[in-house]
Amino acid sequence: MKITILGAGAMGSLFGGYLSRYNDVWLVEIDQKKVDKINRDGIKVREPDGEKVFYPTALSDTKELGEMDLVIVFVKAMYSVSALEKNKHLLGEHTYVMTLQNGAGHEQTILKFVDRSRVIIGTTKHNSSIIDVGYINHGGGGSSSIGLLDGNSGTIQDIADNFSRCGFETEVSDNVRKSIWSKLFINVSASIMTGVLQTNLDFLKDSIHAWRLVEQLLKEAVAVAGAGGMEFNEAEVIKDVRTLVENAHDGYTSIYADLHNGVRTEVDTINGTIITEAKRQGVPVPAHEFVVELVHAMEDKAASYEA
Amino acid sequence: MKITILGAGAMGSLFGGYLSRYNDVWLVEIDQKKVDKINRDGIKVREPDGEKVFYPTALSDTKELGEMDLVIVFVKAMYSVSALEKNKHLLGEHTYVMTLQNGAGHEQTILKFVDRSRVIIGTTKHNSSIIDVGYINHGGGGSSSIGLLDGNSGTIQDIADNFSRCGFETEVSDNVRKSIWSKLFINVSASIMTGVLQTNLDFLKDSIHAWRLVEQLLKEAVAVAGAGGMEFNEAEVIKDVRTLVENAHDGYTSIYADLHNGVRTEVDTINGTIITEAKRQGVPVPAHEFVVELVHAMEDKAASYEA
Repeated sequence: MKITILGAGAMGSLFGGYLSRYNDVWLVEIDQKKVDKINRDGIKVREPDGEKVFYPTALSDTKELGEMDLVIVFVKAMYSVSALEKNKHLLGEHTYVMTLQNGAGHEQTILKFVDRSRVIIGTTKHNSSIIDVGYINHGGGGSSSIGLLDGNSGTIQDIADNFSRCGFETEVSDNVRKSIWSKLFINVSASIMTGVLQTNLDFLKDSIHAWRLVEQLLKEAVAVAGAGGMEFNEAEVIKDVRTLVENAHDGYTSIYADLHNGVRTEVDTINGTIITEAKRQGVPVPAHEFVVELVHAMEDKAASYEA
Repeated sequence: MKITILGAGAMGSLFGGYLSRYNDVWLVEIDQKKVDKINRDGIKVREPDGEKVFYPTALSDTKELGEMDLVIVFVKAMYSVSALEKNKHLLGEHTYVMTLQNGAGHEQTILKFVDRSRVIIGTTKHNSSIIDVGYINHGGGGSSSIGLLDGNSGTIQDIADNFSRCGFETEVSDNVRKSIWSKLFINVSASIMTGVLQTNLDFLKDSIHAWRLVEQLLKEAVAVAGAGGMEFNEAEVIKDVRTLVENAHDGYTSIYADLHNGVRTEVDTINGTIITEAKRQGVPVPAHEFVVELVHAMEDKAASYEA
């Protein structure tokens, strides 16, 4: 397959590297120095059992390229529009555009460039972090799930098979969008509140006040999903998160740990996603706005102690 | 003067006691056992230099009483309407109704029962706590300030003089309502955020995210004040609080200390007041709603550690 990956960050480099095993991969990166480095030394990936090197083609400008079979958007969400705009000549009638970006609602951006039937959304358990230019650490793996925005995802089984062959075990599902939102609901409500309150998940069922905040965050998130065409039953979503909290026992979340350890959190890609999508849909989300600023203020506090 | 005080709590008992020195004071309390105790043993007040006993008349039902010169509302804010409703036969053409209750906006309740020209609002530095039935600790004193809702407060100078003679140094002011709100603005924004973030006031100027929350809380509070007829310039209010924060240096607030020490806070009488008044005016105050639940959740957390 002819694949262009927009963004040579940690995840773009990881996928760009592995997918280049059995595909023609172009990795787009604005910074020419990075491009040169990658083309000279390849993408080096640190794995638990050693290092691997891959040689996708890096480039800062795709004007010489023609239509792709697949374009994967791996830039930061705020740059998705400009990245697609700049590379829209790669998008033909048969080009699929895929997002595996964290958060939800990214399909809204992609829909400005291709028909609904060509939009692939997905989730992946792989994660990656940058060590240096062209050098990444493959932190953890697991399955990935991809699907067409409007279902009938069997038609992209060959893409899933291709990914699996390259090293990313991938399944096709017609419920990806629902899964993305369901996971996000938990993260933007219960998980974030354990960070803010610095408690385990268990506490959320013991404090009526903490639980009310979880509910408020869920109500806003369900409204945002609904406005984007992803209908959820609010009461059911609340009940599901309640069940999770009641069975969590002593569970601590990564956002709890990040704030506890004075590390910057992922709040922008969880509650921040709700805010971005809410703005697109014109839905008010004051609790999410409050919580994002609050978590950043807590990060600032931790940083000020270090200074 | 003929004075009825609604509510024999800590503050009602304090004022009921002292004012009975030179006035006919009736102290209204629903609990007949408390009424009997007070009528038998008086109101005992513990002062730094010893104990004082006063003998106002306690009663659970005022139906035998006629119109008063002054009615002071000292019940909890949520009971103000029912207390006034039950005792409205005490309110004649010349009766003043006074509130010294914590928070702001209590005049809206009183206005349902008497003309604007008879409404007295005020602030007092006196505080008091209950030791036992009819026995209170006078925690601290200082000046009180009272004024008519619509100014021209000179006409109530005799009430202020009467209070002063009884032991509560009281001045008359046409700006009481403005003072109440100005003080409240600081408490519901900067002070509460130092509690939530467990920082000093100084931090609020160093974190753009913390400061944005302060601003959001101020904007909502100014809107609530405005809807109730108390216009403030939003930008000026924000600037004033900013100046306070910039000059606070290492200042810690009492709400910081309460949360730090696992003591229940006064959030209900500060941000809670904004919410009550906002409901009355139909103004949305999502940040205040979030912060009140959050502070209560923090109190719950402290309590769960003790248990």
